[in-house]
Formats: sequence, structure tokens, C-alpha cells
Amino acid sequence: MAKVKKQPRPKALPPKGFRDYFGVDVAERKEMLDAIAAVYHRYGFEGLESSAVETVEALGKFLPDVDRPNEGVFAWQEDEKDWLALRYDLTAPLARVYAQYRNDLPTPYRRFAMGPVWRNEKPGPGRFRQFYQCDADTVGSASMAADAEICAMLADTLETVGIPRGDYIIRVNNRKVLNGILDGLMVDDEKTRSLPRTFKDSLDLPLSDREFVETEAILRTIDKFDKVGADGVFELLTKGRKDQSGAFIEGVGLSEKDASRVIQFMESRGRDNAETLTNLRELMGSSYLDAHEEQGVYHAGIEGLRELQDIADLLAAQGYGPDRIVIDPSVVRGLGYYTGPVYEAELTFEITNEKGRKQQFGSVAGGGRYDDLVKRFTGQSVPATGVSIGVDRLLAALRAKGRVGGKSLGPVVVTVMDRDRMADYQTMVADLRNAGIRTEVYLGNPKNFGNQLKYADKRNSPVAVIEGGDEYARGMVQIKDLILGAKIAENATLEEWKSLPSQYEVPRGDLVAKVREIIALHEAG
Amino acid sequence: MAKVKKQPRPKALPPKGFRDYFGVDVAERKEMLDAIAAVYHRYGFEGLESSAVETVEALGKFLPDVDRPNEGVFAWQEDEKDWLALRYDLTAPLARVYAQYRNDLPTPYRRFAMGPVWRNEKPGPGRFRQFYQCDADTVGSASMAADAEICAMLADTLETVGIPRGDYIIRVNNRKVLNGILDGLMVDDEKTRSLPRTFKDSLDLPLSDREFVETEAILRTIDKFDKVGADGVFELLTKGRKDQSGAFIEGVGLSEKDASRVIQFMESRGRDNAETLTNLRELMGSSYLDAHEEQGVYHAGIEGLRELQDIADLLAAQGYGPDRIVIDPSVVRGLGYYTGPVYEAELTFEITNEKGRKQQFGSVAGGGRYDDLVKRFTGQSVPATGVSIGVDRLLAALRAKGRVGGKSLGPVVVTVMDRDRMADYQTMVADLRNAGIRTEVYLGNPKNFGNQLKYADKRNSPVAVIEGGDEYARGMVQIKDLILGAKIAENATLEEWKSLPSQYEVPRGDLVAKVREIIALHEAG
Repeated sequence: MAKVKKQPRPKALPPKGFRDYFGVDVAERKEMLDAIAAVYHRYGFEGLESSAVETVEALGKFLPDVDRPNEGVFAWQEDEKDWLALRYDLTAPLARVYAQYRNDLPTPYRRFAMGPVWRNEKPGPGRFRQFYQCDADTVGSASMAADAEICAMLADTLETVGIPRGDYIIRVNNRKVLNGILDGLMVDDEKTRSLPRTFKDSLDLPLSDREFVETEAILRTIDKFDKVGADGVFELLTKGRKDQSGAFIEGVGLSEKDASRVIQFMESRGRDNAETLTNLRELMGSSYLDAHEEQGVYHAGIEGLRELQDIADLLAAQGYGPDRIVIDPSVVRGLGYYTGPVYEAELTFEITNEKGRKQQFGSVAGGGRYDDLVKRFTGQSVPATGVSIGVDRLLAALRAKGRVGGKSLGPVVVTVMDRDRMADYQTMVADLRNAGIRTEVYLGNPKNFGNQLKYADKRNSPVAVIEGGDEYARGMVQIKDLILGAKIAENATLEEWKSLPSQYEVPRGDLVAKVREIIALHEAG
Repeated sequence: MAKVKKQPRPKALPPKGFRDYFGVDVAERKEMLDAIAAVYHRYGFEGLESSAVETVEALGKFLPDVDRPNEGVFAWQEDEKDWLALRYDLTAPLARVYAQYRNDLPTPYRRFAMGPVWRNEKPGPGRFRQFYQCDADTVGSASMAADAEICAMLADTLETVGIPRGDYIIRVNNRKVLNGILDGLMVDDEKTRSLPRTFKDSLDLPLSDREFVETEAILRTIDKFDKVGADGVFELLTKGRKDQSGAFIEGVGLSEKDASRVIQFMESRGRDNAETLTNLRELMGSSYLDAHEEQGVYHAGIEGLRELQDIADLLAAQGYGPDRIVIDPSVVRGLGYYTGPVYEAELTFEITNEKGRKQQFGSVAGGGRYDDLVKRFTGQSVPATGVSIGVDRLLAALRAKGRVGGKSLGPVVVTVMDRDRMADYQTMVADLRNAGIRTEVYLGNPKNFGNQLKYADKRNSPVAVIEGGDEYARGMVQIKDLILGAKIAENATLEEWKSLPSQYEVPRGDLVAKVREIIALHEAG
């Protein structure tokens, strides 16, 4: 027979930028998601689980921070047919689902969704290409009450999972106000270049369209306010800027006057919401807006201000003060599809970053109104607003605050002293399990008793149960409190082990009661 | 400005073979998965969530019913680098994870996992390309106690989610016995063609290897026993067979004598496990096996019988009788990677199929021992065994039994009579939510009151709250029992509505108490 060529062994690694979650991490994330889902559900939102795979055309191309529009997603072509892709968020699939089922779904449609999304980005430290999102959206309501509700629900959610009031702030802005500012620039400068288009106007345009990219570039630049500050944004809006590595980032090309105006907009937050709204109005030119209002001419800035006022009033009436939810013009959100209110939840407590410096934890959730996403499919405008929680970041925040990640006990381990009596050991296991106690029998090679104890140690087991031939003959079992005895566990012989004060011999009939007693002790302490 | 070419609208559809799950479906599946996870956890299994995307080389090519080995998965190439693919099951990723983390994980490693998997198959009615699996596996234990434990846990799981004892049977077989049978064929017939290889031998061979395909073909054929019966399998093992559509399915090419032997094997289940084991031994030739045992020569069939005996003994000692778990040689499982015990859970009650005929519900879970999957990565053999529950099928079974899918109540809907008092309505909503009552305000256009009632109807709301200017002035609210009033809801005017006996006027302060009372009434009834 011909010698068969051996194939090389596959590498035991996930693809770059992907990772696995084990045991406690899986359980803690689930617990947090369950708590979030409970809040969403109480608010009347219904679960939706859409397929992870969509057609590329249905997803559209709205990712921020992606230079070429065909990047950012994992996509492949079906045999000379459609291009398919993994969803990059939960909003684009919602728009597709709503367009598809709009005659069957209630209007407004409140839905929540949670699950992984995928981004085909260059992986890096702490940057993963699969991560969880947890979204809530209201489709089919143009009312600012929908936006206010999402913000209030976000506050409730953060408090429910364990972020105390005072440790977070939800900041609200409105894209229309920004559009009003940009419009103002035009009027002042009497430029001949056409107005930067809003996303709304550009939906039917190819993405390469210069003007759309320009507005996008402005949005993305001012979204970096938190990172590079006012001066940095100013440089990026005008001539460009060297970043920390020395690389030159090209500027958007606004005049210095225009750029100053944008910076002023972002810094116009006042001592309270009323002052902020006044500042914004003045920045756009009060008399200029007054003239619009007198003549009944539409101006995005006027509508944006009115919407922010509505949201502020609704939230104030419901008791969500500016200590929890506040109007702040520095919030923009990078995504291109927002058309009205945008909001962002930031955690305000400090953590120590990897370089040992203290810094604010930062953003854990964001969202806004996107009135034109469904229109892509149907041609009819369908108002919609919603929020997305960055699940991994929120979980990291809860860990930083010590709200999750307490030591969790592993299962009781019934050791195997006599391989032929496996059925007896399994019966003990069954007795303990039936009493609701998480238990397992040791299933490795039982020859080396030390390995069994090491195993129990690795599982963080609170209790090991031992029954040798001697105990069996006397109808007894040894019950070892592993938490008390943990420190000397690694090198103990069976005999030393048995002599420890943390080990008890009880009649077989008392097994369940004694184990329960030990576990209760440790759970309390 | 040049006229911009409009792009065609995207179709509001998921890719073929994909679907979305709404509201109650999402909630019911979650509830079932939570119940399953609780059993797995009590048995000591730890959660694992591996990435949905793997390298093609890590996944390997073990899908059944796939004609070409490169089919069956959704795969794409990273820029001239690795081929990536969506996982097609949860077992191949587990093998990769265990190989990667084997020095950090406990041995044995009991893990459970749940989540979607993807198969690039031709979609058809009821055949989807994304579906849920829910697996539990023990890696690193060669003991039959691990297999017995998985079977026992599977029985517990089915009963926990709502399949009563007597409505399911878990059938256990062993691939080694089948190998023994195939080996027997050889000896009898003194053929010159080489022995069909077991999967174990073929791991290092290219998949095109003729002999591997032959064993695979035999496995896949006898896996169709349930569908085509003994005669059908006989035809498929020999010369081929016309299927119902008239298409000819080519046969595997065994001699009639060999095929009969295989059929005999599959039909050798006796009145009890002991008789089954005796039948199997006789089929392989008792004296032939005796000779092997005397000389201490390895024979797969002997080992397979011993393993089945071990499992049967362990389960009997733990009280899992053949009414729940039974040895049945007709179980094979299509997957190529099994090396020892295989098991399958079948629901034995009848349902009416789409053609109106009664039929047994059939398989909802299956698994087995795959001692060589980790070896692909490490070169060292790592024993492993595990089960996968077909989540969608099990959920369908529970629905068929009426165990899930009871009518679930929607949220209380606070209607909007006066748009300017939205904040008041939101305050009512907050009061009800804070009392733990799922509630929402109507966020659509409030102009048409009938639409608000239709909305409440569509949400299956138990209660609508109504407060017009009149009630507000008097400090009262109207509370409408929608379940009592459901039938006449669609055409009622506001005045008719108010006059219905299922509507109550209460002081604003009694809102929560009255709503709670009505909901309690309907939840009880």
C-alpha cells in the first residue's frame, strides 16, 4: 500500500481577534444580560432574535471608522449569487425585520435583542472582532417620549445591574442642532461649496459621494472630543494633526472660523438644561432663528432645540434629573444613520488603566434616533430610536466596581477510592444533586488520589467526599471541607489529609446534611 | 449638479434558509435553555462560549450528509490568509478549545455550551441554515462512567424541561461493536479488498481516501434505518434504491451476505440488555471472540461489548432502567468522528405530521464518544464524550405536548388621551413598573383612539388605562379589563368602550392596586 502523506496538525487557536469565554465569565455575563432583559421586558419591550447572517445589501454600509465602505464586515458570496455577511450590529437587522414584518408587528414596535455582532477590523490588544451587544429600540414612534423613555430605561438598567446613581451620566444631544450649526456656517461664510449633506439626504447616494463623506468626517472628528480635547478636534477639523505616534492625520479642511464654531457648539453645555438650550440658540443666531420661525420656514436647528426641550421636560416630570440624564452638545456618536436625538451613557468613576493612570471609565452605551433606516427598504419613512449597551464594557465596569466576580464555589467532588464501586459513588452524587447540591464524581484515572484532590482544588470545590473500603465496611463517609483545608491540599498524602481538623467522618445517611452544612457556612462567610 | 443615480432598494428578507424569532418564541426558548443549563450545572458542567468563527483547518471536515468535503460550512478567506468559517457544531470548537487550554483546564473537563451553529446546506421547508444546539461534554475521561453520566443527565434534562418518563427513550450503542461486525465480514468472506477503515485509522488520511468514504457510507446508510426500514437499508448497502421521488440512490456495494449481516446487527435488540449483548456476541461469532480473548488479542467488538455492559451496569445501579435508557444496536449516528458509545434520545409519543398522518416525534438529542478529535491538534489521544440537544426540535416537542406556548399576557398599556399630558401618563407607567407590573405608554400617534385599542389588542395586553381631561379633573382613571372586553374591542367607540361592564373608574391613587387585581385574576384563571 502506498504510504499516505500525513497532513500537518491544525493549530489550536481561534482566528485572530476572536476569543473564548469560560465558566464564571459566561455565568456573569448571562446574569447581567438577564437583569437587563428583565428591565427591558418590564418596559414592554419584546425579544427578537434575528439571524446572524444577512445579505450585504440588507445590512447597508453604516459602520463608523471604516475607511473603505466594503470593509468592516465579514462577507462571502454564495455560489454566484447574493453576498452574505455577519451582522455588524443589531440595528441594521432590526430595520430589515421591521420592513419585512411591518404588517404583522404592533406599531410602535418595542423590541430588545442581545447577541454577538462581528466586525472585520484589524484585531489588536483589547479589540475583538466578535462582541456582544444588548439593544432596545422603539420603531414606529416619532414622539420624543420614545427617546425620553429609552434614556430613562437606560438609567434604570444601569442602576439595576449595579451602577449606583452618581456613578453614571446619560448625555443627550440632537443631530438636527448640529445640522443647524453647519447650516449657520454656510450663511455666515457665503461659501460657494454646497452644504455638507445630512445623512437623510445622502441615503440614496453612492457612498463615495464627496459631500456625504465630508459630513461623516465632521461627525467622526467631533466624536473624538473625549480623546483629543477641543484643541485636537480643532486641528482635525482644519489642517490636520500629528497623533501621539507622530503620524499625521489629515484634516477635514474647514476654515478656522468654521472649526471654532463647531468647537463652540460642543462646549455650549450650561449650568442647567435651560442654559444649554439658550447657548445653542445663540450660537445659531437667535434673530436668524426668530426670522425662520416668524416666516414658518423649516430650520433643522429650531426643530432640534424643540426636541431637546421636549425630552428634558418629559424626563424632569418623571423625576430623571440632570444628575442622571443631561443635555450635552459634546455628544455626537460616530454612526452616520442618526437623524435626531443621540444619547450616550458614561460611567463617571475612575479606574486605573493598564498604564497605571487613573481615568474615567467612559462610555458603556449609546444610541439615538434613526428615522430613515427602514425607508431604505420600504420607501416610506418609519421613525425609530434605540440604544445599544456594550455588554463587555459594562461587565468590565461591574467587575471594576466589585459588583460581580465574587469567588464562586465549584461543585462538590465525590472521589473514587475503589474503581469497582463507581456505581456507589454515583449514587452519592445523585443523592447530593437531588438535594439541589451541585456535585460530580471524579471521572479521571482514580489511581493517584493526589490528582483527585488537585482536581477538586482546580474546580474550587467546597467539599470532597471520600469513601474507601474501610469506611464502606463501617457505613461511613469522610467529608472534607476543602476551603478550610485548601492551603495544605497540594502536598498532602491521604493519611495527612484524613487527619486534618477540617475533615469529618459521618454515617452515609448523614452525607447530604453534613455537606449542606459546610456549604452553607462558606456561602454565608 | 449632476443627477445622482438611485440605487435599487434592498429586499427586506433574510438570506434563504435563515429566519427570525419573535417575542414569545425567544422567551420560551430561553426558558427551556435556562432549565437545561441548570441541570448541566448541577451535574458539575461549566459554561463555555467559544467564538462563532473558527479557522477551517481547526474545524475539520466531519459533517454528515455532505457529498463534497468542502461543502457544508459557510467559509471565506481572509486577505490571502487563513480560511475562516462559521462553526457547524459545538463539538469541533470544544476540541480546539481543549487543545488550546489543556494545561489550564481541569481534567476531566466537563463543559456545556449553547448557541447557534450554521450549516451551508440547501435550504428547504423546515430546514434552516442556522439553528441552536445545546451540548454537554466530558473531555479527558476514558471511563464509561462519563458516558453513563451523560445519558443519565440527558434523561434528567428531558424530564426537567417537561417530557414525562415514558415519553422518551435513550438508546445506546457502540461504534466498536459495529467495527467488530465489519471485521467479522472480512474474516467470513476472505475478500481481497482491504478492511473498511475505522474513523480512528483514517484521521491522518486525506478525506478523499476511498476506504474512509466507504465506512462513512455504511454509517450514513444505516443511520437511515428509521426512515427507510430494514429493506431500504439493505438495498442502499448493496445495489442501490429508488427513493419516493423515483430518483435512484446508488448503493454502497456490499455483498448481499454482508448487508444481511449489518441488518442483523441493527435488529439484534433483545428483550433486555443482557439478551441484546448476547445477540451481538453471537452475531460476531462467540467462539471467534472467545479465541481472541484467550489469546489476549484486541478485537474492537469485544471491547465494544464490555463498554456497553459497563454502561448498562452503572445506569442500572443508579436506577436508570431500560424504560429510560436501553442498549439498542440500531442507533448509529451519522457523524464520522465517534469512536465508542453512541447515544440518541427519541421521543416516543405520536404527533400529527404536516400530511395529517400520525408519527413518532423522533430524535431530539444525540451524541457519543469521540476519543480522537483533540488528537488532531495535539497528537496525543484525549478521550471525550458528549451529547447535543436539538433545541428547536425539543421546543417543538414541548409545544406539541402543550408544555410551553400557553397564552402569555402582554404589557399594560396606558393610553394617551391628551398629548400634552404625556408626562402624567409616563408617571402612571412608572408607578406600575415600579410595582413590578409590565407597562408601557402608547407611543404612536394618539389621535385615533381606536388605534390605541387595536395596539393593546395586538400586544395581548390585559389592561388599558385611560385618563381623559374629564377624569383628570376629578382625579380618577378608567381601567379597562381587555381580556373580558376583547371580543367587542375592535369596533367600539370610546363611549361604548367606557360603558362596558369590564371597565372600572377608580381614584388615581388606586391605579396600581386595581391593575394588579385584574392581572392576578387572569393569571390565576
